[in-house]
This record gives sequence, C-alpha cells and structure tokens, in this order.
Amino acid sequence: MAKPRKTPRPRAETPKGFRDYFGTEVTERAAMLGRIAEVYHRYGFDALESSAVETVEALGKFLPDVDRPNEGVFAWQDEDEKWLALRYDLTAPLARVYAQHRNDLPTPYRRYAMGPVWRNEKPGPGRFRQFYQCDADTVGSASMAADAEICAMLADALEEVGIPRGDYVVRVNNRKVLNGVLEATGVSDPEQQAAVLRTIDKFDKVGEAGVRELLGKGRLDASGAYIDGVGLSDEQAAPVLAFLTSMGRDTAETLANLRGAVGASEVGGQGVTELEEIATLLAAQGYGPDRIVIDPSVVRGLGYYTGPVFEAELTFEILDEKGRPRQFGSVAGGGRYDDLVARFTGQQVPAVGVSIGVDRLLAALREKGRVGGEAQGPVVVTVMDRTRMADYQAMVGDLRQAGIRAEVYLGNPKNFGNQMKYADRRGAPVAVIAGEDEFAKGVVQIKDLVLGAQIAANATLEEWKERPSQYEVPRAQLVEKVRAILEGLS
Amino acid sequence: MAKPRKTPRPRAETPKGFRDYFGTEVTERAAMLGRIAEVYHRYGFDALESSAVETVEALGKFLPDVDRPNEGVFAWQDEDEKWLALRYDLTAPLARVYAQHRNDLPTPYRRYAMGPVWRNEKPGPGRFRQFYQCDADTVGSASMAADAEICAMLADALEEVGIPRGDYVVRVNNRKVLNGVLEATGVSDPEQQAAVLRTIDKFDKVGEAGVRELLGKGRLDASGAYIDGVGLSDEQAAPVLAFLTSMGRDTAETLANLRGAVGASEVGGQGVTELEEIATLLAAQGYGPDRIVIDPSVVRGLGYYTGPVFEAELTFEILDEKGRPRQFGSVAGGGRYDDLVARFTGQQVPAVGVSIGVDRLLAALREKGRVGGEAQGPVVVTVMDRTRMADYQAMVGDLRQAGIRAEVYLGNPKNFGNQMKYADRRGAPVAVIAGEDEFAKGVVQIKDLVLGAQIAANATLEEWKERPSQYEVPRAQLVEKVRAILEGLS
Repeated sequence: MAKPRKTPRPRAETPKGFRDYFGTEVTERAAMLGRIAEVYHRYGFDALESSAVETVEALGKFLPDVDRPNEGVFAWQDEDEKWLALRYDLTAPLARVYAQHRNDLPTPYRRYAMGPVWRNEKPGPGRFRQFYQCDADTVGSASMAADAEICAMLADALEEVGIPRGDYVVRVNNRKVLNGVLEATGVSDPEQQAAVLRTIDKFDKVGEAGVRELLGKGRLDASGAYIDGVGLSDEQAAPVLAFLTSMGRDTAETLANLRGAVGASEVGGQGVTELEEIATLLAAQGYGPDRIVIDPSVVRGLGYYTGPVFEAELTFEILDEKGRPRQFGSVAGGGRYDDLVARFTGQQVPAVGVSIGVDRLLAALREKGRVGGEAQGPVVVTVMDRTRMADYQAMVGDLRQAGIRAEVYLGNPKNFGNQMKYADRRGAPVAVIAGEDEFAKGVVQIKDLVLGAQIAANATLEEWKERPSQYEVPRAQLVEKVRAILEGLS
Repeated sequence: MAKPRKTPRPRAETPKGFRDYFGTEVTERAAMLGRIAEVYHRYGFDALESSAVETVEALGKFLPDVDRPNEGVFAWQDEDEKWLALRYDLTAPLARVYAQHRNDLPTPYRRYAMGPVWRNEKPGPGRFRQFYQCDADTVGSASMAADAEICAMLADALEEVGIPRGDYVVRVNNRKVLNGVLEATGVSDPEQQAAVLRTIDKFDKVGEAGVRELLGKGRLDASGAYIDGVGLSDEQAAPVLAFLTSMGRDTAETLANLRGAVGASEVGGQGVTELEEIATLLAAQGYGPDRIVIDPSVVRGLGYYTGPVFEAELTFEILDEKGRPRQFGSVAGGGRYDDLVARFTGQQVPAVGVSIGVDRLLAALREKGRVGGEAQGPVVVTVMDRTRMADYQAMVGDLRQAGIRAEVYLGNPKNFGNQMKYADRRGAPVAVIAGEDEFAKGVVQIKDLVLGAQIAANATLEEWKERPSQYEVPRAQLVEKVRAILEGLS
C-alpha cells in the first residue's frame, strides 16, 4: 500500500527513557520546589544554578562508571576534542563551582540547587534518564552544627510541602561508628571488611539471626541455596550485632549501646560523640526523636559518606501494585563528605548535604491528597456566531482582567457539540454561550458544567430539562455571575 | 618547581560558553518566569515540560544547520547508534509532542513552556551556549483570534513583570503582506526576490532613500564602497517603498496604505485583511496602538513565519557601553507558522506562538530598577563561645520559626573579626552576639549592620563610640527586636 518515500517522516517520539510532563505534572512540581526553596532560603542557603553541561574532566572520578566517559553519563566531544557531559547529579557540579569561585564565595558556603540531572542508564518502569534533584549543601564547615541544621531543615521542608509531623522521620547514623565497629571486630583484610559491609546491608532482609549466620559459617536462604558466611568467630561478630541492634528506647540508650559496640576504637568513639552533638543541637531547637532520630539501622549510602549520614523516610502505609500495604519509604538522603573539592584544589574541604528525591516526594504528596486534586480548567467562551469574535474576545478579556482563567474557543466553531466536548476535555467549570438572540437581548447564557455533570449523572429527565445549571444574565453581569459559580466550587 | 604528577588535577571551570548563576540571578529569573506563567495560565495555556534531549531526527530540518547533526546543536550517538541532541529551542519539541500526543490533547492546544535551550555556536560576550526561553503557542487554530490573543497576552505579561505601559510596544506585521508586495513588483526570479528581501532588511540602516538606490542601480555606502543594486525599475520598486513607508497616523491609515502597496495581489490582500482582523479583535478588548500597533517595519524573522509576525520592543532609552543613549529594543518575538507538525504527520496544522527573551527582559527589569535591589542577606548569629552552640542554634531556630532568614556562623569561631567579615559578605542586615556575660545576664547583643554601616560612613568618632546601632535585649525579646530592625529597613 505505502509507496516508497524519498524522505521518510521522522517518528514523533521521545528518545528511549525520556518523557514529557503535562499541565499539573509541571506546575505541582514547580510549586513543591518553590516551597522547598523558601525553607532553604530561610535557613540562609543561597541559590546556585550551574549549567547542564560540564567537562567530563570536572565530573571526573565521581562518574558512576569510570572506565569510559560514555558510561553512565551522556557525553560527546566538542570542537576541541574535549569531552563534555550532562551532569548526573548536583553534587559534582557544586564541587567544581566551589573550587572555581571559592575566593568570591562566603566560607562556609550554604547553597541550594534544583534542576534536572541525566543518567545514561537502562531505563525501567518509573526510572527515567532525566529526573529532578533538589539539593542543599554546606561547604567549608566541619561543625556538627552544619549536619544538625541540615536535618532540621529537611524536617521543616517536608512539613512545608505537606507531609504532616508523624508521617515522616529523619534517621541519622554515622559512617565513623561503622568504621569503629569494623575495628572492634579485628578484621583487617579489606576483602573480608567488604564482605562484612555487604552483610550489614542485608540486615533489613534477613534480620539479626540471619546476619549472625552470614557473618559466621553461612546460612540456607529461603530458596534452599546455601550462602557462604564471612567466617568470623562469635567474638568477632559481636560488635557488628551490637551495632545493628543498638537502637534503644531513647537517644541516650542508643548512644550508650553504640559506645559499647565500637569498644576501644578511636574513630568509633568520635562517631558516637558526633551523633551525640547532633542530638543535643537538635534538642535545643525542639527537634525531638518524633522528627529526627539517631538510628543505627541507616546503612545505605554509608560507603559514600565520611561522617554523619541521614535519610528521611515517610512512615505511612500505601498499597503496592498487588494491594498489599507497605511503608512508603525513603524520600531524601544525605551526609558528610570531605573529599569532593580536594581533587580540584588539593585541599580537603569539609562538606555536608542532602538531596530530596523530587519525584518520590511528589508521588507521596499525591498519595496523601496534598496535590493533584482535580485540575481547574479555564472558563470556555463558546463561539455561536463567528462574525461576533470581537464580542467573545471582549468577554474573555473581561474575565481575565478579573483574574479568572478563561479562553475563547479557537477551533472551527461550526459544530457546537465539538465546542462542548472541548470544554469537557479542558475540565472547564463554566461555559459561556451567546448567539444572535442573546446579543439582541444584551444577555449571555452561563452554564455551570460541574453542577450540570452532577445533574446529568443523578437527575430524572424532568429535572434535567429544567436545566437549573444554566443561567441567563445581562452581559454586564458576566464576570460577577461566573465568579459566583466558581466560588461555589471551591 | 612543579613536580610531574601522575594524575593531574582537573581544572575547575565551566565548559567554554557556559556559566554559573548565583543567588538573586537565579531567584529573580525564577520569580519573573513564575509571573509570566501566571499570565499564560490565566489565558488558558497549559504547562508542558519536555525533556532536554530529543532525537536528532525529531529536531530534523529545524536544525540551524542541516548538514551534520553536530552543527548548531550538541549531539551524540546512543547505544543503538541513534543520534540524540539537546533541544535548541522549545518550538521543535512542541511539534514533536503535538504529533506524538495529539489524540490526547485538546484541539486547539494552548501550551506554554519555559526552560533552558542549548546552542552549539561560537560563544561571545553575553552570548552563552545555554540560555532560557519562555514560549507560548496555540496549535490547531487558524483563527486570527489566536494571534490577537497572543499579542494581548504578551502585553499583559510585560506589564505583569514590571514594564509599565508606555515603556513597551508590540508591533504586528504579516508575512503575506510582504509576499503580496513581492507579487506587486512583478519580480518572479527567486534570486532576485531574495535580493529584494535582503534589501528590505536594510531599511532600518539605510532608510527610504537608501533602499530606493539599492533596489535600483546601487549606492555608495558610508565607507565609500559601491554596493550593487537589485536592478528593479522605479515602477517595480514602488510597491516595496510603499510597503516600507506605509505606517500611518492610525491603524486605518496604515491598513489603507498596505492595501495600496500590495495592489492586486490576492495573498497580499489576505494579509492586510488578517491584520485588520487582529486590530479589530484587540480594539474590542481595549488594546489600542499604545500597546499593540500594526507596524509594517517589523521585517525581522519574516522568512520563518507564514502569516502574522509580532515583536515586543521596549521603548525606553538606556546608555550603551560608550555612554550614548539608545533604545533598549526587542525582548520577544513570534508569529504564525503552519508547517511544523506536518513533517511528522503529513497534515498541515496551523500554529501561532511567541517566545520571550528571558535574559534580555531580565536585563531590562534590572535597568528599570524593578529587580536587583540590594539582596537581603540572612541575620547572622555569631559564635563567641563554641561550647554554647546549642544556645546559638536555638536562637537561629527561633528566628527561622518566625519566618526570619537566619543562620549561625558555622566556620571556625576563633577569630571574631572573621565572623563580622562573613556577616558583611553575606549582606547580613543584623548580627546577634552573645558571650559569657550575655548568657550570665540572660541577654543578647543585637547589631543593626545597615545602620552601623551608615554611621561608620558618616559619623564622627564620638557618635560612632556611642554605638547607637547596637542594642542589648533580653534573650526572650530576640525575635521581636530583630523583626523591628528588619521592618525599619523595608
């Protein structure tokens, strides 16, 4: 059937792993980011917007995969054969910006940044190659007050966007405590250390008894396969188990348990002291364990960070795709890292930051009904007589001047049914109708589409015929009547 | 001196042609875009955010340079050897989105989009390879009401962001009128037509007499070089000159002059009729020539568009780099284009849109003092006694709870002078100071840094010693006193 074409038509599609966002998907995200920015600003953080493109050299060793520039990031060569790439997070660009502009920036430098990042990774359901991040970092302060502040700010930000207190908790742990625990085990072989860390990561899944087996001789997993153990003695494994089960009834008890777990390790003791400082600073500002809690079970991401680590978790339940209740889970994470700027300047610069998972947080707000209510469409002024377009435009102009979202139907007006279908598709709350008769009488018909839809769904034919959802008013009362209907809605 | 290094440090710099934006540069732009989005929304336009990355195929023939994908755009091959590229404007992605989702979108589809675009072009002073665009387009309406609406919306948007009426004008012309003028000359050779168009583009520079010479035999330019003419007879040149000088005392006169210029040309007459419709629709909504004017001198971009063309110009004078007054010039442009979707679907879809030059508009607002006033820094709580960090955090917590932007000094507190230098660099309006004495007495010292700076600049030593810009207040009155000082400022 199809004839061969000289220049085939291009396919109208996004590249694989990318998508388009429409209407409220865009505006709700922007509103949420705006509210977070307000909190960050109140805490003294300044906005930074670096460009999407960086040299691969500047992104450097922080690439997810270091072998080839084209792994993990989208990269290309410029006219000078230099490799450029799209940023894959907002932290690597911060390190570059701080190193480049450090003489002009305050020290410490508190900055926030929000915007898209790109990952050249296999896309999957809900996993896209472009997504938003929303970060705040303090560069140049070694004080635990910086870490405490970021935890408090994260709690404030979650409440500000509509997650009520009690529905979230910020959990704080410390990489140094884990290092202390490793020291206390007496394990010094790096491979065995790595095996211990991998086992700790499985605590969520296999529990205390499972970890005990995996640290020792091994265990049979659910499928019946035998998993080799790390081969520690009971005595060596003890500090790890003490660490994993150190959560106490209150902060003081947790900290005491952690001190026990790290034993004589100096770095471990320092880590516990840092957690104590954070807890004290937060308590002084009224942030108790109902909002921010010292919790040794936060083990994800410990490898990346060098000191305190934190994670914000939403604690309410949602139904998964199979209808089973489950916890919503993590929406933000962060911690202290000290080596990011040094690669540019040779100087260690202490830094601590947090990154909010924008899309997950937005999903949580939709789940809680905090955003994503029925989007209010515009009032639609229909076109009964195309020679009267100036009059329709004047109506729509009056409505807009009054701050009411409104539009005139701009398609082919021949078929009036199409205009009402259009109003429906637009989610219009009100339609305005005026033809020859109305212009002669100086009136307009105003149709309450929301009420109309309710009547259509529930009313008898007689009730429907009475059309109580349509009003004839003088043209001069157009704005007033539309406003009254809209206010009745909200 | 420098030893050879195994892994040289990466250079901390943006790629050539890119830059970082700090603090108010980011927030002022975001605020301006937010206000424009409100106007677009009120007009019934819906937000659209497509991804930064498109297939080169989809960007297709709209590439600034069609020969190689890597000319004009930043492009690379994905794992399937497909060429991907960063979008270079927001119109090409709109065409792709509309073609892809047209069955789910209302017709006509009004959408706005704002975000960065990327050009792989030679950077220059003030010309960057990433910059913002802010577009609104109506796809699927051939009605001149769509064009008129976009002109009115553009005028509203300019006023909304702070360009007062009288400081801008939206000028409207029509490509069809120009086509009609070409027909009226009787010139049919495409090369000669192109030469006529190039000459019209020079009207701004060389004026009526210059264009007359260039359309005929040619002329001596300012440098003494002889520029060859197009070779038209006086009779052939007459419609062009009539077109360029058709601006009348009012819209009716301009339209009459244009009708004269296009003579018997059908397309030309249609173009004049379209301009007449736009003027009538705008007049019905109260948009007179003080805001939107039919102006045949708008000739830039006529090649791209197929019908009405418009341009928003700021009419106030600024001083150029040599201190000479000049008009600020164009900040937005747009028009009607009908061939963008057809390349995907084969169907002509009429469309009209406008693009605001975000950075130029922001520069204009700064010039008018509408944005960019002194950025208000945070209140800085200094650290006199590092064992009291929890108390300082509590102070800053109280201030933030009260909605006051505040931070505690997080650097090394040893040198108090550094803390005051930091407060200065942050633009802090107020510093809070509390040491051993203050804690013992239950008070804090509050320093009005703005008043202090004024006194330091103008006062005698005696006045300065009295330190009237520093207040001792009970700790419980911290928030109240800081607020009073801040309110005195604003």
